[in-house]
Amino acid sequence: MTFTARELAERVSGRVEGDPDRRLAGVAPAGHAGPDHLTYVVNEKYAKRLARNEAGAALVPADLDIDGNGTTLIRVDNPELAFSQLISLFVPADAPGAGIHPSAVIEPGAVLGADVSVGAFVTIGRGARIGDRCEIGPGTTIGAQVTIGQDCIIGPSCSLMNGAVLGDRVRVHTGARLAVDGFGYAVGPEGPVKIPQVGRCLIGNDVEIGANSTIDKGSLGDTTVGDGTKIDNLVHIGHNCRIGRNCFIVAQVGIAGSSIVEDGARLAGQVGLAGHLTVGAGATVGAQSGVMTDIPAGELWSGYPARPHRMWLRATSLFYKLPDLARRIDRLAGDSDGGES
Amino acid sequence: MTFTARELAERVSGRVEGDPDRRLAGVAPAGHAGPDHLTYVVNEKYAKRLARNEAGAALVPADLDIDGNGTTLIRVDNPELAFSQLISLFVPADAPGAGIHPSAVIEPGAVLGADVSVGAFVTIGRGARIGDRCEIGPGTTIGAQVTIGQDCIIGPSCSLMNGAVLGDRVRVHTGARLAVDGFGYAVGPEGPVKIPQVGRCLIGNDVEIGANSTIDKGSLGDTTVGDGTKIDNLVHIGHNCRIGRNCFIVAQVGIAGSSIVEDGARLAGQVGLAGHLTVGAGATVGAQSGVMTDIPAGELWSGYPARPHRMWLRATSLFYKLPDLARRIDRLAGDSDGGES
Amino acid sequence: MTFTARELAERVSGRVEGDPDRRLAGVAPAGHAGPDHLTYVVNEKYAKRLARNEAGAALVPADLDIDGNGTTLIRVDNPELAFSQLISLFVPADAPGAGIHPSAVIEPGAVLGADVSVGAFVTIGRGARIGDRCEIGPGTTIGAQVTIGQDCIIGPSCSLMNGAVLGDRVRVHTGARLAVDGFGYAVGPEGPVKIPQVGRCLIGNDVEIGANSTIDKGSLGDTTVGDGTKIDNLVHIGHNCRIGRNCFIVAQVGIAGSSIVEDGARLAGQVGLAGHLTVGAGATVGAQSGVMTDIPAGELWSGYPARPHRMWLRATSLFYKLPDLARRIDRLAGDSDGGES
Repeated sequence: MTFTARELAERVSGRVEGDPDRRLAGVAPAGHAGPDHLTYVVNEKYAKRLARNEAGAALVPADLDIDGNGTTLIRVDNPELAFSQLISLFVPADAPGAGIHPSAVIEPGAVLGADVSVGAFVTIGRGARIGDRCEIGPGTTIGAQVTIGQDCIIGPSCSLMNGAVLGDRVRVHTGARLAVDGFGYAVGPEGPVKIPQVGRCLIGNDVEIGANSTIDKGSLGDTTVGDGTKIDNLVHIGHNCRIGRNCFIVAQVGIAGSSIVEDGARLAGQVGLAGHLTVGAGATVGAQSGVMTDIPAGELWSGYPARPHRMWLRATSLFYKLPDLARRIDRLAGDSDGGES
Repeated sequence: MTFTARELAERVSGRVEGDPDRRLAGVAPAGHAGPDHLTYVVNEKYAKRLARNEAGAALVPADLDIDGNGTTLIRVDNPELAFSQLISLFVPADAPGAGIHPSAVIEPGAVLGADVSVGAFVTIGRGARIGDRCEIGPGTTIGAQVTIGQDCIIGPSCSLMNGAVLGDRVRVHTGARLAVDGFGYAVGPEGPVKIPQVGRCLIGNDVEIGANSTIDKGSLGDTTVGDGTKIDNLVHIGHNCRIGRNCFIVAQVGIAGSSIVEDGARLAGQVGLAGHLTVGAGATVGAQSGVMTDIPAGELWSGYPARPHRMWLRATSLFYKLPDLARRIDRLAGDSDGGES
Repeated sequence: MTFTARELAERVSGRVEGDPDRRLAGVAPAGHAGPDHLTYVVNEKYAKRLARNEAGAALVPADLDIDGNGTTLIRVDNPELAFSQLISLFVPADAPGAGIHPSAVIEPGAVLGADVSVGAFVTIGRGARIGDRCEIGPGTTIGAQVTIGQDCIIGPSCSLMNGAVLGDRVRVHTGARLAVDGFGYAVGPEGPVKIPQVGRCLIGNDVEIGANSTIDKGSLGDTTVGDGTKIDNLVHIGHNCRIGRNCFIVAQVGIAGSSIVEDGARLAGQVGLAGHLTVGAGATVGAQSGVMTDIPAGELWSGYPARPHRMWLRATSLFYKLPDLARRIDRLAGDSDGGES
C-alpha cells in the first residue's frame, strides 16, 4: 500500500512543497527515513536530522524555515497531529479480534454487545456489560457487574474488579488494575482492621491507562477519572480521588486518597501527591515533585515539598551554592570578630 | 435488608441520640448520604458535611459537639471502626467462590483444604498446600511447594512463586508477585553473573498486599513480613528484608535488600529505604523520604536524606528562603566592605 | 547429594584450609549455617557472623585475615562469584518445563524451537518465533510476530507485546510487560490525540527484567536494552530509550522517553531520568535522584536535581545546618547594625 505526497497532504489539509507524486510506502523517524518513507519534524532542532538523510517526504510546520533538499515537504499546522493521523495508513493496527475465544469463561448474566472480541482465558463475571466492538485481551479478568462502554480496548492480563465502570473508547494497557481495594483501615484495640471498600471506579470516555497501573475503587463513594485523561505506566491512584478531564499523568506518579486533580492538569513522572489536596485546572507539576499543599490553577510547581517553579529554581540554585554561602558567612564572622577585637 | 438505628447501635455498643427506629438500607459518604443511609464522621471537620445533607443516621464520636438536626446519631468510641464492622451488613462481600473451576490445572501432589475456591485458569504447582476456605482468583499462578494458610483471599492474576509461605487470613490483591527472584549478582570477569535466589518469602497472618506489589524471596535465607502488616499497591520489598508486625507500607514504597522495618512502623507513599538499615518500632517516615541511615524507634523522620521531622521542617522552610538569606549576606558583605574601606 | 570441601574447591579453583573431607549437603547464610552447610563471607564484617556459628565450610577471600575455628575455609578470589557457581549443586533449579501444555493457544504461523516448554494458559500469537529450550510460564501472552532467542525464561503472567524482540538467555520475571505502547500524544483542537506507537522493543542477550516492570516499544524507531543489563522490579523504561550493555537498573527506577543510558551505568533505586538525556558509560546515580541533565561517563551523581555526588553531599550537609547559618546571619546583622549605630 503506497500513497503519493499529494494524497497524504489532502488528508491533513497540507501544502506540498517539492514533488507531489513522490510515492511513500512506510514511516520512519527523521534520522532514519529512506526515499519511500514519510517522516515529520516539529521544529528546527529536528530539521537537522532531516537534512542528514534521504526521507521521501516530511510533514513540517507551515512556517518552518527549511529547504527540502530532495525531500518532499508537506506543510501543516501541527506535524505531530498530522502524522498521528497518517501513520495508520502505513502500519495497520493489530488484527481485530476474532470473536469470542472458546476458552473464555463468561458467567451467566453477562451481556456482550455486537462484534465484541474476547481473547483466550478471559473471565467475565456475572452481570458484567461490555459494549459494542470492545476487544478484551487474553488472560484478562472482568469482575461481576463491571460495565464497559463501546470501542474499548482492554489489553492482556488486566483486572477490572467489581465496581469498575468504563466509558467509550477507553484503552487499558496490559497488567493495569482498576477498582482495586483502597488502603483503608480503622485502628482497633488489636491492630488495624480493614474497612471494606465498596465504592466504584468510574473511568470517562477516551481515557488511556498504562501498563501495570493501579486505580483504587472508592471507599464508600467513587474514584473518578475524567474524559480524555491519559495515564502512563505504573501509576497509582488512591481511593476517592477525582481526576479531571484531559489530564496527563506520567509514569510512576502516585496520588494518595481523596485528592483532586482538575481538568487539564499535568503531573510529570514520579510525582507524589499527598491525600485530600487539589491540583488546580491546567496546573503542571515537575517530575519527582512531592506535593503537600493545594496548587492553584494554571501554575507550574516543582520541588520537595513542591512550590512555584521559579521559587524552587532559585532555592535549588542556591542550595548547590551553600558551601560558598557558608564560606562567606565565615569570612564575615571573621571580619566581624576582627572588628570587635 | 434494612436495620433500625437501635439494631445497629447494639452491634457496636453505641448510644442512640434521636430516632432509634429510623430504618437504614445502605451506606454513603457523609456528604452524599440520604434519609435511608448510614454514614459516619470522625471529627468536627467532617461534621459540617453531615450538616449539609439529610443522612438517616451517622456514627459519631462519643464526645463530639454535634447536633443531629434530624439525623439520628449513634455515638461510639471509634466511628471508623464501628462503621467498618457495620458496612458488611449492607454491602455483601463478593460472592464466595464456587469450588474448583474445571479449567484449573492442579499438579499432582498439591493439597487443597476444605471449601477451597479456585478460579478459572489457575495453576497450582506440585506439592503446594492451600488451607481451608481459601479463595484463589482467576488466572493466578501458585508455584511448586508454595504453602498458603486458611481463609486467605488471593486475587486474580497473582503470582506466588516457589518459596512463598503465607499465614492465615492473608489478602493478596490482583497482580501482586510474591517470592520473586531478588536482584543479586556477582561481578565476574565477563560481567554480572546471577546469584541463584533460593530463600523463602514468609508472610504472616492477617497481612494485606496491594495490587501489582512485588516481594522478593530471600537470597539464601528468608524475606519476612510480620502479622497484621498492611502493604499498599506497587510496593517493592527486596530480598532478605524483615518487615515487622502491624506495619503500614503505603503505595510505591521501595525497600532495598536486607533492611529491617520493626513492628508498627509506618512508611508513607513513595518512601525509599536503602539496603541493610533499620527503621525502629513505631517509627514513621514521611512521604517520598529517602532513608539512608537507621531511624530510632518511635520517631518521625522526613526528607532526602531523611532526618528527624522537625529538623527537616526547619531546614526546608529556610531552603525556600535561601534567596533572602543570600541577599542578606550580600548586604552584610557590602556593609563589611564599607567598614573595611 | 553431598560434596566434600575438596570437591567444591576444585570446581572454583579454591584453596582448602582445614578439613578437606568435610561433607556439605546444603547452603545457608553466614549467620545461620550448620555443620553440613556451605556459606560464604565477602569481607571482615561478615566474617564475624561466621565466628558465631558452626558452618561446615565457607568460601572466603584469598587474603582475608580469618581463622576457620572448626569451619573449613575455601579461599578464592571472589567468594560471591564462586558461591553463585556452587549453589546450584545443592539447590536444583525449578523443574524444567514438561513440553507444551495442552491448554496453550498457539496461533497459526508461530514457530517453536526444540525443547521449548510452554505453560498452561499461554497464548502465542501468529508469526511469533521462540528459540530452542525456552520456558514460557503459565498465563503469559506472547504477541504476534514476537521473536524470542534461545534459552530464555519467561515467567508467569508476562506480556510480550507485538514489537518485542529478545536475544538469548533473557529472563523476564513474572508480570513484566515488554513492547508496551509509549506515552505519546499530539495535542489537537479537541484535546490529546494518541500517536500510534509502531516501533520495536529490542532486548539483548543475557538481560534480566524484574517483576512487574514495563518497557515501552519505540514510537517509530526502537527502544533498546543492551546485552547483560539487569533490570529490577517495577522499573519503567519509556519509548525510544537506549539502554547500554551491563547496566544495573534498580527497583522503581523510571526513565522518560528517548533517554540514553550508556554501557555499565548504574541507576540506584527510585531514580528518575528526564527524557532526551544521556547518562554516560560507567556512571552511577544515587538512590532516588532526579536526573535532569546529562551525566558524564564514569561519574557518581546524586540529588534532586542530580549533581556530582560530592557537590550534593556538601550542599546536603549544609542544608540541615541552615538554621545555624540563619542564626549566624542574624547575629552578624545585629553586629553590623550595632556597628552602624
